[in-house]
Amino acid sequence: MMQTAAQQLKVGFQGEPGAYSESAVRQLFGEGVSIPLHSFHRVFEAVEIGTVDHGVVPIENSHAGSINDTYDLLVKHGVRIVAETIVRISHCLVAPIGTSVNDVRVVFSHVQALDQCEEFLSSLGVENVAVHDTAGAARMISQEVRPGAAAIASREAAEIYGLEVIATGIEDRADNSTKFVAIGTNDPGIFGPPDKTSIVFSTADIPGALFKCLKEFSDQGINLSKIESRPSQARAWQYHFYLDFDAPSHDQRAKGALEALGEHTTFLRVLGSYAGFR
Amino acid sequence: MMQTAAQQLKVGFQGEPGAYSESAVRQLFGEGVSIPLHSFHRVFEAVEIGTVDHGVVPIENSHAGSINDTYDLLVKHGVRIVAETIVRISHCLVAPIGTSVNDVRVVFSHVQALDQCEEFLSSLGVENVAVHDTAGAARMISQEVRPGAAAIASREAAEIYGLEVIATGIEDRADNSTKFVAIGTNDPGIFGPPDKTSIVFSTADIPGALFKCLKEFSDQGINLSKIESRPSQARAWQYHFYLDFDAPSHDQRAKGALEALGEHTTFLRVLGSYAGFR
Repeated sequence: MMQTAAQQLKVGFQGEPGAYSESAVRQLFGEGVSIPLHSFHRVFEAVEIGTVDHGVVPIENSHAGSINDTYDLLVKHGVRIVAETIVRISHCLVAPIGTSVNDVRVVFSHVQALDQCEEFLSSLGVENVAVHDTAGAARMISQEVRPGAAAIASREAAEIYGLEVIATGIEDRADNSTKFVAIGTNDPGIFGPPDKTSIVFSTADIPGALFKCLKEFSDQGINLSKIESRPSQARAWQYHFYLDFDAPSHDQRAKGALEALGEHTTFLRVLGSYAGFR
Repeated sequence: MMQTAAQQLKVGFQGEPGAYSESAVRQLFGEGVSIPLHSFHRVFEAVEIGTVDHGVVPIENSHAGSINDTYDLLVKHGVRIVAETIVRISHCLVAPIGTSVNDVRVVFSHVQALDQCEEFLSSLGVENVAVHDTAGAARMISQEVRPGAAAIASREAAEIYGLEVIATGIEDRADNSTKFVAIGTNDPGIFGPPDKTSIVFSTADIPGALFKCLKEFSDQGINLSKIESRPSQARAWQYHFYLDFDAPSHDQRAKGALEALGEHTTFLRVLGSYAGFR
């Protein structure tokens, strides 16, 4: 019996229905394929053992920067980035129907959402409680009777859990966006030929070696579209460099640069070669 | 009438008595000089208008990386970095005397302290509440009767507010440290001759231009001791680069590199030239 890819496809994401990650799944793979999972770790595991075809995880926020957990898991697991997309993060204050903004005494959400709405929350002068995820915060206040409780979550989460949106666009920065990547053990073959590559590396003597690393790409005439350094989670005052360049990894110039790069790095991983988001 | 510098000196920090910033003030300037202020912004303002002689603010955490707020304020205000120090951040779970770890139902602290103790808090399975600062959390639970309440704060904060330390070293990373800088409008003259310089810059076309910027230091034979990129808070997907180099800014080679750097950057600020921490 023939089945279409859409009928079979399962795509894991971290969170509960209504999470921003679920919007990213929809943008990349369409409706009706998303499978909620408990943690980023579970998403990678599910992809690796094959209980889902692909996973979708956040990799960089436009203002907070790279998401170290995702990079760490990309290094730890035998999966690759197969696609990317960008989701506009527009936070809403959501609460049980009939609640007004003045009734709110305590706001539940993911710690990053609380942080992104700091100015709004300060102006309300309410207590902030950090929970596991935004959609989970919405579900919680829809199930438990807690007078004065509200959540920061997406409009979708409010709809799913029967809550009212009592304030919109409450994030401090109007252009708050998050880049998500699809991960997999094989190319889904629906995103077109790869034209960019993501790598992560670290160097022994950081600042001098970084110059030598960038020079290899410059020498090959390859354009870099992202470079970010972040403290390594393994050791204090050590950095990891995350770099995207505009060439597929099978390109001859890319091969030359990566080979040369290996001489300056203590650690180097190609995280994936895929079609860039446009 | 003669007064010694120690008698007159006032050094502002953000937070309440017992804050980690107060430890940094003590390490740099000694006892009895610290003035608690409400926000980082107030610290910079107080230094600028002269109600304090110097301020001390955190600039980089060993694991979370550069503190954007501090860099933003350094750019915004007419003050310079005059010294630096590193404080080991060892978090304690503190609670009213007689509380045991099993009694704890809710933990109050600064959002970053909650984040740094995530594994410990997960194992307790308690509610986390984000408040303005760690020492403030300790003060709050010492003043309000809230059964099952604890705070994550320093040992000093527990002593100041008459609380008991019920768990120590609860941070996920054992080598958690924060670098603090002293800011001022003049050199306090107690830290020795400057041997390092901190700058911040941004470039138009990031990755290619960054290579050219690093090359200017390489060409002058100046060693870079830190480089970190972070998303600019002003525009999505734009980066600021924070760089420290091992030379005073009045050094001829440093002057040459900085002058050349100006040709590749859209924004460049020397944040200070000072004696590095040893």
